[in-house]
Amino acid sequence: MTRLVLKFGGTSVADPDRIEKAADKVAAEVARGHQVAVVVSAMAGVTNQLIDYCRKISPLHDAREYDAVVASGENITSGLMALALQKRGIAARSWQGWQVPITCTDMHGKARILDIDRTLMDERLNSGEVAVLAGFQGVTSRNRITTLGRGGSDTTAVALAAALGAERCDIYTDVNGVYTTDPRIVPQARKLDKISYEEMLEMASLGAKVLQTRSVEMAMKQNVPVQVLSSFEDPIGSDFPGTLVTREDDIVEHQVVNGITYTKDEAKITLIGVPDIPGMAAKIFGPLADAAINVDMIVQNIAEDGKSTDVTFTVTGTDLQRAMEALNKCEELKNTDIRSDESVVKVSVVGIGMRSHAGVAQTMFKTLADKGINIQVISTSEIKVSVLLAAEYTELAVRSLHAAYGLESK
Amino acid sequence: MTRLVLKFGGTSVADPDRIEKAADKVAAEVARGHQVAVVVSAMAGVTNQLIDYCRKISPLHDAREYDAVVASGENITSGLMALALQKRGIAARSWQGWQVPITCTDMHGKARILDIDRTLMDERLNSGEVAVLAGFQGVTSRNRITTLGRGGSDTTAVALAAALGAERCDIYTDVNGVYTTDPRIVPQARKLDKISYEEMLEMASLGAKVLQTRSVEMAMKQNVPVQVLSSFEDPIGSDFPGTLVTREDDIVEHQVVNGITYTKDEAKITLIGVPDIPGMAAKIFGPLADAAINVDMIVQNIAEDGKSTDVTFTVTGTDLQRAMEALNKCEELKNTDIRSDESVVKVSVVGIGMRSHAGVAQTMFKTLADKGINIQVISTSEIKVSVLLAAEYTELAVRSLHAAYGLESK
Repeated sequence: MTRLVLKFGGTSVADPDRIEKAADKVAAEVARGHQVAVVVSAMAGVTNQLIDYCRKISPLHDAREYDAVVASGENITSGLMALALQKRGIAARSWQGWQVPITCTDMHGKARILDIDRTLMDERLNSGEVAVLAGFQGVTSRNRITTLGRGGSDTTAVALAAALGAERCDIYTDVNGVYTTDPRIVPQARKLDKISYEEMLEMASLGAKVLQTRSVEMAMKQNVPVQVLSSFEDPIGSDFPGTLVTREDDIVEHQVVNGITYTKDEAKITLIGVPDIPGMAAKIFGPLADAAINVDMIVQNIAEDGKSTDVTFTVTGTDLQRAMEALNKCEELKNTDIRSDESVVKVSVVGIGMRSHAGVAQTMFKTLADKGINIQVISTSEIKVSVLLAAEYTELAVRSLHAAYGLESK
Repeated sequence: MTRLVLKFGGTSVADPDRIEKAADKVAAEVARGHQVAVVVSAMAGVTNQLIDYCRKISPLHDAREYDAVVASGENITSGLMALALQKRGIAARSWQGWQVPITCTDMHGKARILDIDRTLMDERLNSGEVAVLAGFQGVTSRNRITTLGRGGSDTTAVALAAALGAERCDIYTDVNGVYTTDPRIVPQARKLDKISYEEMLEMASLGAKVLQTRSVEMAMKQNVPVQVLSSFEDPIGSDFPGTLVTREDDIVEHQVVNGITYTKDEAKITLIGVPDIPGMAAKIFGPLADAAINVDMIVQNIAEDGKSTDVTFTVTGTDLQRAMEALNKCEELKNTDIRSDESVVKVSVVGIGMRSHAGVAQTMFKTLADKGINIQVISTSEIKVSVLLAAEYTELAVRSLHAAYGLESK
């Protein structure tokens, strides 16, 4: 008797018909003899509708009330899913965060899970009942409702899987797995059967919007295998029809590179003629950190005169305006030319095999050079190489790299 | 420092704009120095939408899950109302049934309130915070969510007023009070300033759909003055712009008759040729009681042959089909002619003054006779006289009686 946690996102429970189809997926796992806990998101559109109501009434809303309103969406779906399962002859009940309880910090709107009390749910699961938990929510020590922030249902599912000692957490969504790159750009993109937590984390935070970054971090920390799969397909004859995100050790054969990702929400800021004196970096980046702006790639060049330098770095497009304001207020930069460019893209190659293989970066640089694509900034980590390019080269770069690393489906 | 409970129905909180207007009413009471608790219904249409979802998925749904789904509507409104109050500079927080807690029986879908723990809410009210409670819901001793049945928010409001020792419970709705009769039939119908619980109870159960019957019963039992008033009007210069429902003793001048009501959801069943033997009534009405069908007016006539009788009685139109099925299965009635008629209306005159005034029924009978209206069945209580008429006479009867008892506005 193994336990599974199944999570269904908003599009997978968008209306009563979709909920019925999702219930069929749950019923299939119950028929296989598993103990099953289900985590559901709000029906697609509901959360946005509720957020809209809050904003209309009060743009600067009390996060506690916002949470009480917004968490209602998941409550609705959990009850409806329990009904759909009962209709299939399966014992089932809905759980709201406070009923478990799932205790969270009181950072309303972006709470973190502190504890999931498994006592009551354990009892019900062992009696053969399916638990249907409202995702994205919890309760504070003062009995107020909190939410985990957008996409938080993934985190709920992984946390529940860890708390219940589940064998696997299946995330049902509108794509059937994690791909080597965006199939809209490269039709030959290949679905990955397995991928390591580390790679998924790079892929998730680099723009493959399949899983919420926090949920992957938690899965890695708690060692919960996570499968991403489609709720709209009915694959036959495969134990893992989707992509399994798991420990590096559980993946027998590693590709050197597993994916090509790109993020367009990037902006480049260039400071020309920064005085080349000690402590200058702190003076530039201090105000940005104070404004809670994340700086990503950084490169510094010595200018020709030897007395000043040029500094280039990237922030997210969303943060650009605030970043420019912070820099323009900076006394030390009053003689510096501050330029920004939003027409950039960050393209990355990701692969855990890089650790033991040389030449990955070189292949990237050569491929781009052969296509006449200029690299503006480079940054690397143990398992990825990222470059900043002019946005117009996005598709060309992604396609060339996908081919250069031999990622096409066979 | 007095306490008030303000309740807003679905049309009064139908969208963010209406919620803002309702918040203005609350703010006005706070400005007058009252401690205020607010009870809200779901936004108009939301409850029906949620019920629809449940029915689509499972016509025979588990009432516990139905409750969990449907109670979400009120949770949304309570959070939004708290936000609207905060925007007006008023300290406010939302409360869901389980947070108070409001403990209910586990008759899901039609639970009764067992206890309202005032401890936590008392503390907040005394600190000057407005409490915004989600109506219509509570929690069982096993921590499952329950609802009180349609219109249950009125009951929540009155129960909360009793628990908090509030001076009055104001029910804001889409009409500005209780009228002497339906103004759509009699344009001269007059709004009543005050009405006794007993009269309101007769009026409520006789078709004046202003207040839920259970809430009036509770108000009478707990001695909570209830005011019915409009959330769409802004009356100036009156302490009680609506209709105050209160103890008989608190009403100085009693009218003999205070209202004319009518209910169209009536059906008449006539049994012709029932054997006139002892115990026959039990054999007729036993099966109806077993089928949970309420029988209202009953009249029995001796037939001309002296060996059999005719029995006439009424049930609600909704119950007619089930009633006919039960009677047709009845062995003792196999030689009886069973007829039904849905084209009937029950018209009633209600007034606490009847107790001490003779001739009220006589005025009714004479008025109807003068208009050539035949009375099919009569029933009376201490404070009302009801007659069953052919439905086509509804408007004529109501108008004639309204005039006969001098109920027009001056």
